[in-house]
Parts: sequence; C-alpha cells; structure tokens
Amino acid sequence: MRIEIINTGTELLLGNTLNTHGAWFGRELFKLGLRISRQTTVPDGDAIRESLQEAISRADAVIVTGGLGPTSDDLTREITAEVLGVEMMMDEAALRSMEAFFATRGLPMADSNRKQALCLIGADTLPNLHGTAPGVYVPPRLNGKSNCAVFLLPGPPRELYPMVHQEVLPRLRALAGLESVNEALVLKFTGIGESSFHEHVDEQLSRIPGLEYGYCAHIGEVDLRLIGNEAALAQGRRIALEHFESHLISDDESSMEKTVVRLLAKNKMTLAIAESCTGGLISNRITNVPGSSEVFTHGFVTYANEAKVGMLGVAAEEIALHGAVSEQVARAMAEGALKVSGACITVSVTGIAGPGGGTEDKPVGTAWIGLATRAGFTSAFKVFHPRNRKDFKLAVSQSALEAVRRHLKSLG
Amino acid sequence: MRIEIINTGTELLLGNTLNTHGAWFGRELFKLGLRISRQTTVPDGDAIRESLQEAISRADAVIVTGGLGPTSDDLTREITAEVLGVEMMMDEAALRSMEAFFATRGLPMADSNRKQALCLIGADTLPNLHGTAPGVYVPPRLNGKSNCAVFLLPGPPRELYPMVHQEVLPRLRALAGLESVNEALVLKFTGIGESSFHEHVDEQLSRIPGLEYGYCAHIGEVDLRLIGNEAALAQGRRIALEHFESHLISDDESSMEKTVVRLLAKNKMTLAIAESCTGGLISNRITNVPGSSEVFTHGFVTYANEAKVGMLGVAAEEIALHGAVSEQVARAMAEGALKVSGACITVSVTGIAGPGGGTEDKPVGTAWIGLATRAGFTSAFKVFHPRNRKDFKLAVSQSALEAVRRHLKSLG
Repeated sequence: MRIEIINTGTELLLGNTLNTHGAWFGRELFKLGLRISRQTTVPDGDAIRESLQEAISRADAVIVTGGLGPTSDDLTREITAEVLGVEMMMDEAALRSMEAFFATRGLPMADSNRKQALCLIGADTLPNLHGTAPGVYVPPRLNGKSNCAVFLLPGPPRELYPMVHQEVLPRLRALAGLESVNEALVLKFTGIGESSFHEHVDEQLSRIPGLEYGYCAHIGEVDLRLIGNEAALAQGRRIALEHFESHLISDDESSMEKTVVRLLAKNKMTLAIAESCTGGLISNRITNVPGSSEVFTHGFVTYANEAKVGMLGVAAEEIALHGAVSEQVARAMAEGALKVSGACITVSVTGIAGPGGGTEDKPVGTAWIGLATRAGFTSAFKVFHPRNRKDFKLAVSQSALEAVRRHLKSLG
Repeated sequence: MRIEIINTGTELLLGNTLNTHGAWFGRELFKLGLRISRQTTVPDGDAIRESLQEAISRADAVIVTGGLGPTSDDLTREITAEVLGVEMMMDEAALRSMEAFFATRGLPMADSNRKQALCLIGADTLPNLHGTAPGVYVPPRLNGKSNCAVFLLPGPPRELYPMVHQEVLPRLRALAGLESVNEALVLKFTGIGESSFHEHVDEQLSRIPGLEYGYCAHIGEVDLRLIGNEAALAQGRRIALEHFESHLISDDESSMEKTVVRLLAKNKMTLAIAESCTGGLISNRITNVPGSSEVFTHGFVTYANEAKVGMLGVAAEEIALHGAVSEQVARAMAEGALKVSGACITVSVTGIAGPGGGTEDKPVGTAWIGLATRAGFTSAFKVFHPRNRKDFKLAVSQSALEAVRRHLKSLG
C-alpha cells in the first residue's frame, strides 16, 4: 500500500518550525507494518493543489496536514474538493459542535470559523476533540475521479495525534486489508551497540514468521522495535532478552530516568545525585519525571573543586593527590552525598567535558562514576565518551543512571 | 527563484531520524532572501528518480541530500546522471583526496568507496572536508536537457553544513542574480511576546527599503531576524531596540546561558544556583556553555524541603509558615546559596511544576525567583508559567537567567 504525506505550512519551509509530523507518522504507520513512500512539504495556500494532484495519481492513500483553519491562507478543504471534483456543503452537526467548543470556553465564534464546518459531500467528518477544525476522510472512488483515499487533518500535534489514533489508523488498517491484529513492542537497551544486535539476534529474529523489526540508536541507548501478532512478539522478545536481558531499560517505552524513578519508588528508596561534569543534567532528567519528588531529594552540582570540598566534604588533599577526575574523588563524592543528604543511594560523576582540560592520562571524554548506598556499598568505574560537550554530558548521565538502575535491579 | 529540496533516506520515513535538513535549509536560504518552494522526502534507492524528474521540471534549482555513500543503496549520483543524460567518469583528484582522508585516519579504503569519486562530466565536484563523499554541482543547461541547477550533497549535518556554506550558497546567490551583499542579523529578546513586535515595530520595519524580516518564537524567547544590506540592518536594529532594548538577550545568536556566562566573565564574577522546581535545568544550561567552569561554581538542587534546610540553611519555620513556594523561601535560598558558595551572585527558584501539588492560592505553574549578591542586594519576584512539566521548567529557567542577565547588565 502506497501512502504519501503532504505537510502544508509556510513556517515549515522558512525553518521557523521543525517538521516533526513526518517522523511521527513514520513510527505510527510502522506499527501497522505500513510505510510512507513519500513526504512532501509545501507552503500554505494554493501550492497544495499541484502536490495533491500528483500524490493522488501515485498513491493509495494521501494524508494532508494543515490548512484547515479559518484564515484566507487555509485552503486545504476547498482545493481538495476541487481536485477531487466533489461538492461542498455545510455540515450542521460539525457547525454545532464548533459553536459548543467556543461556548464552553466563553469565547465568541468568528464568522470566518464557519467555513471550517464545510464538508465534502460523501466524505466523513472526523471529530476534533482538541480544536475547532474537524478532519475530513474522502474514501477511494467517491466519484470515480480517484482511486486514492484522502485524509485532511489539522496541523497542531495536540489535535492531530488523537485524531490519527482514533480515526485515521483504523481506516488505514481496513484499507490495507490488515486482518490480523498486529501489535508493537519497543525494548530499550543500554550499554550495547546496534552492531551487537546485528551480530547476535538479527538472524534469529528474521526467521520468526510475521515479525517485522527495526532498530533506533540514540546516545547511550538502542531501541529494538518489534511488530507482529502476540506470538511473534513473545518469540522476538525472548530471543532479544536471551542475549541482552541485563541491558534492558524497559519494555514499555519508558525512558531510563522514568525507569529509575519507578524502581526507587518500588523499593521505597530515595536518591541523591552529586554531579561535576554533567553540571545538573542528571538531576534535570530525574526531575522531568512526574512524581520524582517522592524519591529524589538532593542534587549537588559541585562544578568547582571548592564545591566538592564544601558541599560534599571531599578532602582537598584527595583532589590534590589524585585529581578531581579520579576513582578516589568519585567515591568520596558519592559517600559525601550520602552523608549530607541521608538518601538511600547516591551516584556521583566527575569528568572532563572539554573542549579544554584534557591531558594525555585523562583525555577529554573521560569520566569516573561513583555509587554509594546506605547499606555500606561503594563502587566506582571509569567511562570514556569522547564526544562534543552536550553529547558527552548526555552519555555520562546515561552511564550514571544505568549504574543506579543495575543496583536497584540487583535488589530484586 | 524556485528552489526545491529532496531529502533521501529510508530512516527519515520510518521515523527513526527527525528530518532537520528542511528547517536548516529554510533558515539559510531565508538569509539570502530566498525561499524553498517544496521539500520532499523519499526512501533510499530508486525512489529518487521520479521525484528528481518532477522537481527539475518545476524548479530553477534542486538540492538533493543523501545517497552519496558507498553502499548499493546509495544511488543519487548514478540516477541524477541518468535523469539529466550526463555521462560519468572517475574524478582522479577526488579519488586521491578520498585516499588521503582514509590514510590520515589510518584506515583501509574499501573498493566500494571508489564509486564516490565518480563525477558527472561537466559538473563541479564540491570538496567534502569532513567525510568521504564529495558533493556535485550540475549547472543549468549542461546539455540542453534541463534548465535547472542541481546540487547533490551528503546527508550527515557535519559534512553537509560546511559544504552548503562554502559551495552551495555562493552559487545560489549567483544563480539568483543577487548583487547587493545581503547580510543577516538575529536579535534575541525575552520577556515580550511576538504580538508586541507586531504592535510596535512591524509597520516601521516594513517601510525600510530592501529589508526582509521575520520572527521565531520559542519558550521565553522571540528571535527577530533581519535580512538586508548594512544600512537596512542598522535601521531595523535601531527601531527594534528603540522599543525593546531592555529585553535584548543578544545580537549575535548567543543563547541566554551563553550571554550570562559572558557577562559574568566580563565582570569577573562567579555564580551559584539554587534550584527546586527546575531540578538542575539552570545549572545544566549554564554548564552547556564551554568555559562555564570559570564562572559557575556551585549548584544546589534542593528538591526536598530538608535539602533547602540542610544544604542552604533555610529555616524550617520559614517553610512551615510561608510554604516552600514563597517570596521568603526564594530569598532565603538565594541568600543561603551566597553564604555557602561564596559566589558573587546567586539565583534561586522554587515553584510548582505539576501535574500535582497545586492549590487555589498557588496553582501549578507558579514559581518564585530570588536573587542575592555579595554586595548585599536581595530581591525576589513571582512568575506564572502554566505549562506542561518540561516547558514549565524551561520557562522558569529562562526567567531566572534573565534576572541574572539584567542584574549583570545594570552593573554596566
């Protein structure tokens, strides 16, 4: 099944707004085992005509986003009717639902909004629960002019995403004749590269009937996506975990930080974090998780050596003797954080982000990570992530959170 | 001049990788006063043929990214030669430069790499300083088949961006017949919305001959971009600053955090940061700036009330009396951070990120920001950013950094 996406919006071509719709649609369709064969971005207004004409001549389904608003630039509905040779009329139900949308917000409805309730005769109106513009679905062969299904959808993600899930994907599934109910499973791993998967599991995965799979590599993380029926997913999951279970972050798309917060809560434990080179990033990631205030208490960003001494009680002599980036100082930071915070577990990082500050012994990219627990366990290990400053910080924060995750996992 | 972009890459359509090329090209071309009329994404391989044929029939210039690598999927060069009816030959200079690329890295060059040095006869080879694949420029009317200029460029940003600046933009400028040397100026503002610009400066800006301008709004920031000759830029700048100089973050595309680090260094001052609701984000932003270790010493992420008491010496009674989110606690945090760190200036934030924790008096989105200096100045103010958790953190961090920036500015 050939599916094309057309994104309309002058702001996308001026570079003011990043087009994230394409990637999002790609992932959603992949879960159904479908693919986008082409994605096109055109400016607002009349430019959509040409691209729509071309797309319907090639594709089985065309999805257009944007241009359903009330302004004079918003012409998607009108141009589509013209291109497909379909008449338009006022959809009274859509009009009333739009009036209700404004009324519940105590806002007046402008006359220009009325045109948003115009529908193409024979097309389905797709309800918009989060905005004023309803979507439109024109089934194939509506009037013999085109054998292609056309969806017109609003641009803003908070309106678009729910409409796609509720109205578009079920129709695409039916159009594609997908009978078996395929499900998607995302397994997030860390501490191993994509090449390990190619080497150890690719061949086995490729032999599972009806299973589609793909990888997505980020800094410090590889996501394995499996698509198929329940049996195929279970088999794929088993094979992946047989090799890499100890590296598994989550099997429900939870991020590393969310996983750590969840494990802390499960174990009724609190965490404190002592950061030098990551400069607050680890605390920032943890506090992005709703509910983190239940488990995260203290963050020490000890960027200067005096901060390591003053805030964490690291001995100045240790720093002088071994250097701030050393096993001894990483341990002392984690132990100091434990003492000052009273948390159940602490993690510390100290390293060289660059661009300056590297030496032959300790090049830019080197970091030591320390772990201490109230139960009296302390450990430290070295990592090496020679990357640009931001990516280094991200990679080190991932290694540090992974150390916490592994420790919490070992508690059962 | 009609310019189209074709991005090739299966990963872009599967949603594994976000297509940022489109937005980046949009901004670069806008600086020359040029626009993208269409952007298309197609999978690797043969799909490029159809889209290239269509694009050259419509456009004055087509820019293709990706598919110049050594694998069997990388067919951009071959297909373009075919579509344009141009013969190919080995470019010996490009081949030698590629051999040198591998030699300096101590790597063997695979046979498959050789095809990357194939060039289209009559086309320019565009040197790639950061990778193996040279770019290709096919001028219009090379053989009478097409009146359209075609650029073939590598996909990875670190190879693409410098090549565009050095090889592509000058040629596009010549093709477009841009004689006067247009320059771009980006003024970053905070604390005012785009609507203030529409109200106060739009009309005056629109009357400056030869000036193009546009806005780009982010959380806590509006960028005004001016394009034109030196005189037009100076005039546009004067008008914008007449109204909003006190809101100016930078006039050289420097971020808020970079501006703050620069002002601290200029004043030979150090900064410490006490964060509750932003959870380390402010420290993280500051430490993203190379050289921040010269001016940033201590970060206190006092998420729990005990951390505010223990790390900063905030009186537990103050918290009990006024609540953790209050003017008094914000002041006490900033003053405590000053005492503990010995820094010249400190900023503190305490607020309610949500989703839980809001009350009628202090709804989710409320934050207090405190400022204290070694010179004995303390102040605090309230902000209200009712947004989702991550956007709230970003908006509050921006308000806090802006408070520091304004104070440093006032020192002259």
